[in-house]
Amino acid sequence: MRYTSAAIEALIEEFAKLPGVGRKTAQRLAMYVLHEPRAEAEKLASALLDVKDKVIRCSVCQNVTDKESDPCAVCSSRARDRSVICVVESPVDMLAFEKTGFYKGLYHVLHGVISPLDGIGPDDIKVRELLVRFSGQESGEVKEVVLALNPTIEGETTSLYLSKLLKPLGVQVTKIARGIPVGAELEFVDEATLSRAMEGRSAM
Amino acid sequence: MRYTSAAIEALIEEFAKLPGVGRKTAQRLAMYVLHEPRAEAEKLASALLDVKDKVIRCSVCQNVTDKESDPCAVCSSRARDRSVICVVESPVDMLAFEKTGFYKGLYHVLHGVISPLDGIGPDDIKVRELLVRFSGQESGEVKEVVLALNPTIEGETTSLYLSKLLKPLGVQVTKIARGIPVGAELEFVDEATLSRAMEGRSAM
Repeated sequence: MRYTSAAIEALIEEFAKLPGVGRKTAQRLAMYVLHEPRAEAEKLASALLDVKDKVIRCSVCQNVTDKESDPCAVCSSRARDRSVICVVESPVDMLAFEKTGFYKGLYHVLHGVISPLDGIGPDDIKVRELLVRFSGQESGEVKEVVLALNPTIEGETTSLYLSKLLKPLGVQVTKIARGIPVGAELEFVDEATLSRAMEGRSAM
Repeated sequence: MRYTSAAIEALIEEFAKLPGVGRKTAQRLAMYVLHEPRAEAEKLASALLDVKDKVIRCSVCQNVTDKESDPCAVCSSRARDRSVICVVESPVDMLAFEKTGFYKGLYHVLHGVISPLDGIGPDDIKVRELLVRFSGQESGEVKEVVLALNPTIEGETTSLYLSKLLKPLGVQVTKIARGIPVGAELEFVDEATLSRAMEGRSAM
């Protein structure tokens, strides 16, 4: 069943294409847009196009950045520890680390992981761009690469692949700890995580 | 914590203004837009502006319609029963009835209900426009007005108000039945609904 307005229907259809947005939610969003001032709809519309027009990948770390600020804010910051690079799968993961405020080093965004089943090989993600960072001026500076990929089969495979590539370059390769999440109850933690936590135990 | 791209941040901010969309969802939507082709973002952007530019209210039933089709598809359809008008609160409610395919009459959309606490009086909703429909050429045709407002205090108040206005015009005023929803289990139906169901019992 359709609204009596083709324009509303078109908007509902477009909203419904977004991830996690079904027809009911799309209807609610369209009704909201219908009732808000035109200026608000304009702002959303131009923000949509701006993202497509202005966002590029940082030439150093491959993270998303704006055309006018390349290298990105992190890569060009003098406050960051340039001796360590944290390798992540996506810009969202990088943001997660930035939120903690704990890590002060640089990043490298792979934009994916190696996944033979999906036909994604090392050349489809930003591996070459990572290696380039060890051949330029920066090369001597980097002492450690922290692999912070998701704990999936693909993530582990990619970590292994990267560590084999990076070790010969004379850089220390580490990966983030797997273990009990802070605040979790042991009773409800899965076996794999518990095993990893035991394996990675440290002296007190 | 912000992305290293101002354009992405701006889009996240705009998405987060939508109802039911929090910062996390807005991030996911922005990332989706970032990865989809520009044409898709353009379609959403222009659909947004079209809704603001093309959608008007039908001059007869006040439902949403496009500029080039006024009166709306329902009001101008020859297939509809012109002797009955169903009064609803919003276009979404009208759509809900249309989905059933059961009701074949006309509609009138109030765009709200009388709510003294929120400062909404009869003049703030489309009551005058409803009365106009009983003074023009159509006037003789309409035999029945079905009040289909939401079962809230405001909805009931508005129903009562409208029935008092409409009855002197010689039109039959009815309201939709309250009772047990189809498929519900009596055990879990609230007391108010059960009482209404008992009150509205019919012969078998």
